Amino acid sequence: MASTRVKIAVDAMGGDNAPNEIIAGAIRAAAELDIDILLVGDAQHIESYLQQHHQSPKNVEIVPSEGVVSMEEEPLVALRRKPKASINVAMDLVKQKRADAVVSAGHSGAAMAAALLRLGRIKGIDRPAIGAVLPTLLAGKSVIVLDVGANVDCKPKYLEQFAIMGTVYSKFVMDVDIPKVGLLNIGEEPTKGNDLAIRTHELLEANQAIAFGGNAEGRDVLKGDFDVIVCDGFVGNILLKFAEAIGEVMLQILREELPQGINGQIGTALLKPNLQRIKQRMDHAEHGGALLFGVDGVCIISHGSSQAPSIFNAIRLASEAIDHQVIERIRSYNQQSSFEKTEKLSVSNES
Amino acid sequence: MASTRVKIAVDAMGGDNAPNEIIAGAIRAAAELDIDILLVGDAQHIESYLQQHHQSPKNVEIVPSEGVVSMEEEPLVALRRKPKASINVAMDLVKQKRADAVVSAGHSGAAMAAALLRLGRIKGIDRPAIGAVLPTLLAGKSVIVLDVGANVDCKPKYLEQFAIMGTVYSKFVMDVDIPKVGLLNIGEEPTKGNDLAIRTHELLEANQAIAFGGNAEGRDVLKGDFDVIVCDGFVGNILLKFAEAIGEVMLQILREELPQGINGQIGTALLKPNLQRIKQRMDHAEHGGALLFGVDGVCIISHGSSQAPSIFNAIRLASEAIDHQVIERIRSYNQQSSFEKTEKLSVSNES
Repeated sequence: MASTRVKIAVDAMGGDNAPNEIIAGAIRAAAELDIDILLVGDAQHIESYLQQHHQSPKNVEIVPSEGVVSMEEEPLVALRRKPKASINVAMDLVKQKRADAVVSAGHSGAAMAAALLRLGRIKGIDRPAIGAVLPTLLAGKSVIVLDVGANVDCKPKYLEQFAIMGTVYSKFVMDVDIPKVGLLNIGEEPTKGNDLAIRTHELLEANQAIAFGGNAEGRDVLKGDFDVIVCDGFVGNILLKFAEAIGEVMLQILREELPQGINGQIGTALLKPNLQRIKQRMDHAEHGGALLFGVDGVCIISHGSSQAPSIFNAIRLASEAIDHQVIERIRSYNQQSSFEKTEKLSVSNES
Repeated sequence: MASTRVKIAVDAMGGDNAPNEIIAGAIRAAAELDIDILLVGDAQHIESYLQQHHQSPKNVEIVPSEGVVSMEEEPLVALRRKPKASINVAMDLVKQKRADAVVSAGHSGAAMAAALLRLGRIKGIDRPAIGAVLPTLLAGKSVIVLDVGANVDCKPKYLEQFAIMGTVYSKFVMDVDIPKVGLLNIGEEPTKGNDLAIRTHELLEANQAIAFGGNAEGRDVLKGDFDVIVCDGFVGNILLKFAEAIGEVMLQILREELPQGINGQIGTALLKPNLQRIKQRMDHAEHGGALLFGVDGVCIISHGSSQAPSIFNAIRLASEAIDHQVIERIRSYNQQSSFEKTEKLSVSNES
């Protein structure tokens, strides 16, 4: 390759607001980040959009695709029937090393299936997991929760692998020295929980390469005590969607209650900029998307309802994952001996 | 019994703030509600508290107990070792028909075990479930979620029984004409979810006595679309604890962001009463406690951190459940034929 600049393939056709919002987010990323964008989709539409908006960024290349996997389709069937669908073409760009990452707001099941089929799994990882980064109560501190939807029925060893991938991400992308791993559960004691939780607890406790901090209850997720929280994709998905929706609930309570009475109206008017900031802190668009861990390439799965700002943030997230060599580190971690792993992550057993 | 007034046994010794906050909440309930209170606990302490506070309500009776099951104890062992522990004595009052309900903020596992051992299950119910009532986005509309912690590993038929108990509660206590039941799941389609969810979906769909509205995703829980949401106690407990904590998170964001800048300080001062109302809407103390469904008596399990207002609300909740004959209705429902059930709940198959 002539250039060593990071190249990100963006699925322009996936998502409720595709293609225009996706294109808009990608153009902003091309302008503000030091990266190249490969916009995968209906070439004619993308070109006319760029012309209409008087844009001709040099670091945006259009890669034509045909068709898109819709939300109603069964992923595997659709991917096979539409080999040139945008998500397939985007994954192929990574496979062919023409791109370093894929960002898609389309059918998340299809994105995951396409990644598995075209990029394959990282050696040593049985199941890919979707990891979502959530803000915590501690300023500037985030927690990565995985899996939030890839695997509804899990085995303990999958959750152990999620713990390792989360640890790598937390350490190298989020700069946490010794990431503290929690197991999502219904009580603090090791004997608490369902069968999966109890058996996973044993595995995590015995794994010297991660800093296992014990069970994390629902109330602990956003506290900031843990850097990585593992769970099966059923619980994780319900939790994530609940968390996303509750921001909306809170904003609505504010909208209803704050402006009541004359003082309320004056006060609310004075607080407008501060309320705007609150909205941003609660808004999932700010977080961009979730990472698909365990496949052999960087894949960011954005929310189906993503608009341009989410896509911009998702592309930035992809770029950070590439810069910090997340895939290489997970791969090399899995090829090391247990002793080397301990050294590599410099995780002590003290808590 | 001489009187037909509702009598509620309150476990004065259970909870982080026992006994004083519990006593205070119970006295308020005795003053404001048309009920009798049996305060179960250390008689000497309760008497001296009443004297100190110049209280001698006629509708409060002290029932002495010895010891309490602490949070660290294994419930079954502790209940056997301490037959006169407050939770045991309170349950016995219901068994002996000296009280109509129990309210406890103590060890929830112990409360459940004591209820099962002393009151037994309602015929036709395999497992008791803890039901939590949450507010929704629709003004004045609540949703009951069960199970939120009694059963970590469930079978489909347990969830079907939870759906029936939730329907009875929603219809007769919350006055919902045709309660719409949702199955907590990760997608709308019947084929989505883990093994438990898929098999439960079939059962609920086939049950003519409930108005099954399909799967409810995490984002749907607080929307107000559903009146009853069923799930296993593992997922439900994590969701409930997350929901309780997120109110705190939101309040902290408000505290941090609202008073910033001079306008922020003035605006926040003007909004003080409105913010107080917001705090109340987000505060779990307002909801009082969770109901233990499926045991043969009304049991309210309050939050361990309950203070007087929570206890007051929990007692009111117990009184409502008694007034609306929840236990009798679940019991009689389970003794009816399938046809009668359909009639009784007047649930149509249309959606």
